[in-house]
Amino acid sequence: MAFFKKINQKARVSSNTGFGDNASSYGGRFLNKDGKANISKTGIGFFEKYSWFHSMLNVNGLNFFLIILGFYVAVNLVFAVIYYLIGVEHLAGMIAKTEPEKFLEAFFFSAQTFTTVGYGRISPSGFLTSGIAAFQALTGLLSFAVATGLMYARFSKPTAFIKYSQIAVIAPYKGITALMLRLAPYKNTTLTDAEAKLTLGLTIEENGKHLNRFFPMDLELEKVNALTLNWTLVHPITESSPLYGFSKEDFHNMPGEILVFLKAFDDMFSNTVVSRGSYTFREVVYGAAFNPMYHRDESNNMTVLDLGKLSDYREATL
Amino acid sequence: MAFFKKINQKARVSSNTGFGDNASSYGGRFLNKDGKANISKTGIGFFEKYSWFHSMLNVNGLNFFLIILGFYVAVNLVFAVIYYLIGVEHLAGMIAKTEPEKFLEAFFFSAQTFTTVGYGRISPSGFLTSGIAAFQALTGLLSFAVATGLMYARFSKPTAFIKYSQIAVIAPYKGITALMLRLAPYKNTTLTDAEAKLTLGLTIEENGKHLNRFFPMDLELEKVNALTLNWTLVHPITESSPLYGFSKEDFHNMPGEILVFLKAFDDMFSNTVVSRGSYTFREVVYGAAFNPMYHRDESNNMTVLDLGKLSDYREATL
Amino acid sequence: MAFFKKINQKARVSSNTGFGDNASSYGGRFLNKDGKANISKTGIGFFEKYSWFHSMLNVNGLNFFLIILGFYVAVNLVFAVIYYLIGVEHLAGMIAKTEPEKFLEAFFFSAQTFTTVGYGRISPSGFLTSGIAAFQALTGLLSFAVATGLMYARFSKPTAFIKYSQIAVIAPYKGITALMLRLAPYKNTTLTDAEAKLTLGLTIEENGKHLNRFFPMDLELEKVNALTLNWTLVHPITESSPLYGFSKEDFHNMPGEILVFLKAFDDMFSNTVVSRGSYTFREVVYGAAFNPMYHRDESNNMTVLDLGKLSDYREATL
Amino acid sequence: MAFFKKINQKARVSSNTGFGDNASSYGGRFLNKDGKANISKTGIGFFEKYSWFHSMLNVNGLNFFLIILGFYVAVNLVFAVIYYLIGVEHLAGMIAKTEPEKFLEAFFFSAQTFTTVGYGRISPSGFLTSGIAAFQALTGLLSFAVATGLMYARFSKPTAFIKYSQIAVIAPYKGITALMLRLAPYKNTTLTDAEAKLTLGLTIEENGKHLNRFFPMDLELEKVNALTLNWTLVHPITESSPLYGFSKEDFHNMPGEILVFLKAFDDMFSNTVVSRGSYTFREVVYGAAFNPMYHRDESNNMTVLDLGKLSDYREATL
Repeated sequence: MAFFKKINQKARVSSNTGFGDNASSYGGRFLNKDGKANISKTGIGFFEKYSWFHSMLNVNGLNFFLIILGFYVAVNLVFAVIYYLIGVEHLAGMIAKTEPEKFLEAFFFSAQTFTTVGYGRISPSGFLTSGIAAFQALTGLLSFAVATGLMYARFSKPTAFIKYSQIAVIAPYKGITALMLRLAPYKNTTLTDAEAKLTLGLTIEENGKHLNRFFPMDLELEKVNALTLNWTLVHPITESSPLYGFSKEDFHNMPGEILVFLKAFDDMFSNTVVSRGSYTFREVVYGAAFNPMYHRDESNNMTVLDLGKLSDYREATL
Repeated sequence: MAFFKKINQKARVSSNTGFGDNASSYGGRFLNKDGKANISKTGIGFFEKYSWFHSMLNVNGLNFFLIILGFYVAVNLVFAVIYYLIGVEHLAGMIAKTEPEKFLEAFFFSAQTFTTVGYGRISPSGFLTSGIAAFQALTGLLSFAVATGLMYARFSKPTAFIKYSQIAVIAPYKGITALMLRLAPYKNTTLTDAEAKLTLGLTIEENGKHLNRFFPMDLELEKVNALTLNWTLVHPITESSPLYGFSKEDFHNMPGEILVFLKAFDDMFSNTVVSRGSYTFREVVYGAAFNPMYHRDESNNMTVLDLGKLSDYREATL
Repeated sequence: MAFFKKINQKARVSSNTGFGDNASSYGGRFLNKDGKANISKTGIGFFEKYSWFHSMLNVNGLNFFLIILGFYVAVNLVFAVIYYLIGVEHLAGMIAKTEPEKFLEAFFFSAQTFTTVGYGRISPSGFLTSGIAAFQALTGLLSFAVATGLMYARFSKPTAFIKYSQIAVIAPYKGITALMLRLAPYKNTTLTDAEAKLTLGLTIEENGKHLNRFFPMDLELEKVNALTLNWTLVHPITESSPLYGFSKEDFHNMPGEILVFLKAFDDMFSNTVVSRGSYTFREVVYGAAFNPMYHRDESNNMTVLDLGKLSDYREATL
Repeated sequence: MAFFKKINQKARVSSNTGFGDNASSYGGRFLNKDGKANISKTGIGFFEKYSWFHSMLNVNGLNFFLIILGFYVAVNLVFAVIYYLIGVEHLAGMIAKTEPEKFLEAFFFSAQTFTTVGYGRISPSGFLTSGIAAFQALTGLLSFAVATGLMYARFSKPTAFIKYSQIAVIAPYKGITALMLRLAPYKNTTLTDAEAKLTLGLTIEENGKHLNRFFPMDLELEKVNALTLNWTLVHPITESSPLYGFSKEDFHNMPGEILVFLKAFDDMFSNTVVSRGSYTFREVVYGAAFNPMYHRDESNNMTVLDLGKLSDYREATL
């Protein structure tokens, strides 16, 4: 891989990315397209490996509901078995006649107890059944307390709501060229004090060994006071840029990866939100410029941001 | 618009406001009077555009209650239809005789199940009805879990509780003049480490093109340790101020806008709170000074801050 | 008040305390002993002045419970009146005979509906009564959602749990003297990155006018990595100290006030907590030194912090 | 203890660790192995000393459940006694005949009221019993509000989920030696902006007095942008290191302690999380190097972090 020698020797190296340096033991890309690190963990027990709370916050809404529904059915089955084994004669007001019907009615009594709806047509009478029903009502309330907490945590989870352009471009810029990519907030949130970092990740050959190397990519503007319209991240390809001297072919042939990290402050919740992205060199369009994506509205009183144009570009001669 | 040449050429330009530079495609004022950016978004689906959670936090209290009430009625109507279609003979204890009455009673049974009040005069008997009631009780508890989370999020939402003077003034200040505006905390909260920024926004002509330009306005004092009494933001109009050389007429004729940004720390919740404001040049009184707004109480033991005087000013010769 | 000339002319002045400069309109001490600013607010409506949420977080536990209890009784009275006016014949299962008893039973039915306990001995039958009961069950659940949020906010409220010594001392220190005061964390919390600020507040005469002046007081150590044992704040009275040259009599005669501000990070909640205190000159003991307040335990395996000794001092010759 | 003279005189001293300097009154190690400070507190009342909220967040899951269960049983016992003393004839629907059975049924009625399950087979009839039941339902809801808050606080509590290597090593490093220890995130959380500090704690003899002294230990890398794979903290033993000149025997004989402090940002919750650790000199392996703990997976598409190898080392000649 002789083209690794192409890397600009003047470029600064970043040693604090949290990824390993030893390329011979490192597999695959650094960040997945969704911004998560491309690693797995072993040597640790299943339950120790996962934070159930973090997991329940990450599953999608439908699965979240199905997990809760499954838990609800399972708990009621367990208690239905217990009530049935103790004897349904301790449940006053039963109308079922066959055994399966009796089990079913015990199941519904369990659900009525667990949710504390407690209609009372069926009610516990013996000591054991009454005690277990009292215990079940407690566990029901605690379970719904957990569900309340989970649901609050899910929808108050700090989220950046940022869209990235699907491609990055190498565009003309003040007499030289620059790598540009574009991002925009797409929801009715207010983001301020936004800060971006670009890092180039490459596997290079150094003294005969393959090593992962990371290069910080300077931005024309690293911070904006408010993320109101779109923001174009501009990395000027100066003599100190790690991309200095790269040709169109180099971008096609080299397995480089551009890591994007964004941090902003969500005013409404007083939360810091973060967002990550990744562009491989294949996702860089050489010789292109982004089209504008905002315009006046008809009344000339408001500015309109058109998110459908986030990845729109035209050809540009470098 | 020849008066744009009046802008002080020595003034620094700010490039990180998050607003676009291209005035020809930009419409209207930058910030609305309530501090929100004056933009709208297109090119994105309705549901993708809004964060329902942010939206529910922004509607006023009455609408919030009406939305919940509407949801409650709608859910109960849906379940009432289901119970009615399955057959009200599976609801033990019904007393209704006509069909509309039966539907109504099914509706009330639904409400009693959804809220888990479960009086039990009416209770489900068949398998299907019992199963749906068990499911409805679950959805009821989960719905109220969401409502609990929303309500907590609403009233724990970090809010600055800051009032701004309705006008800004150009006042005499240490031999020169200064633009001043005043703000004060008006609730029983404790704000510390307050930090303010002023920015001048203008549409100017540069090389024949109309461009939005933003100028940071230096403050005599950018931070206070505690926001206890009122705080007067003072921008001295020195030779490096973007307002240097402006006459009374300039303020009347030019379409400038002064953007205020305030950040403080709410001790009670350990939250950073932010507040934004905007003054057009029409809201600047030339040749005026604010009147004091605090005084001793009668017993001479306490200081009284009179918020009714926040915008009080007297004429002052420059 | 000629002794105001005693203030060290080399001392730096602090202009960002958030208190006003104009002493002639300022009344009383700056901070109350509990750390709250000694001001009141007028010119604003009662409901606009208070954040009910902040207020409910500040009342003590008993009052909080009584307010909730009062609200509960009031709501049930209102609904009892409504049910009674509609007619108790629409409440199936009533056993009361006299009118007062009927009202009482309507009240208890209301409570059973509001809390969703819904025994069902009494149950609504008519359309109007059933509808109102369905509405009341909704308001009940929402009210308890508010109570849940309030309670969570109350006990998760960031609190510093810091005790201050009742007095400050002027003690010998490295050949000169120093003002010292002592603080210690007293609960089972873990505070890190603690940071302290001392400010001297005085009303002084300048060019014939009385003005409030604030002087930052440099500390030997402004930050500690962890607030584990006690922390003695030491302000060395060097030539640049505002207290330089003060005699024992000056401390007795002058109306000075030392403002303490502490900020720390509570590890458990990942919250910044703050604490404020205030010492008038009368609370400064001239010529004293604090006694040690920690020692080994008997087994020599642990260090014991004795909070009862926080204000213990011995005389010391300056 | 003459070997204290071995401490490098050029090493900087840290005075802001929050631990006391006076070794003669200080007992035991500084930090326990779990990272908590090794101190206890006296001179303060039991209830003032503990924050019940912090305590409930620190007990393990089982004890937490048992405390809630105990509270539930206790409250119901108290109310059962009250209902029993008022007279069970005011509880309509009782079927018990003997006195113990009546008390039991009162207990179950209490549980049904407290959880608001309210079957209604038993229901209050008299004024006093009805009033107390109404009060109990209120306390029940408030208790479960507290439980909801506690549970949410427990599982949303910011936690670092970091594992430390069991030993630290003195390894060859760029021509000199370095103290190294290793840490790794072990759950499915995303930690960014991680920052580490190492401090050496020693009891030394200075001018004939025993004093605790703390020395900051410089790290090759103090911050990483993301804590993705393992992180090896490297303290190069240069001429300014407090460990400069220590032999293998010194590590065996001296009672030194290395304190680790880690701070990171949990992206998912937008929380700062902290972690602490402590290595005594006995836990330092002289002349060793850590083995790599990550490798490619078979498909060469992903990197695998093997947490089982966190403490794996090989011998290394210094």
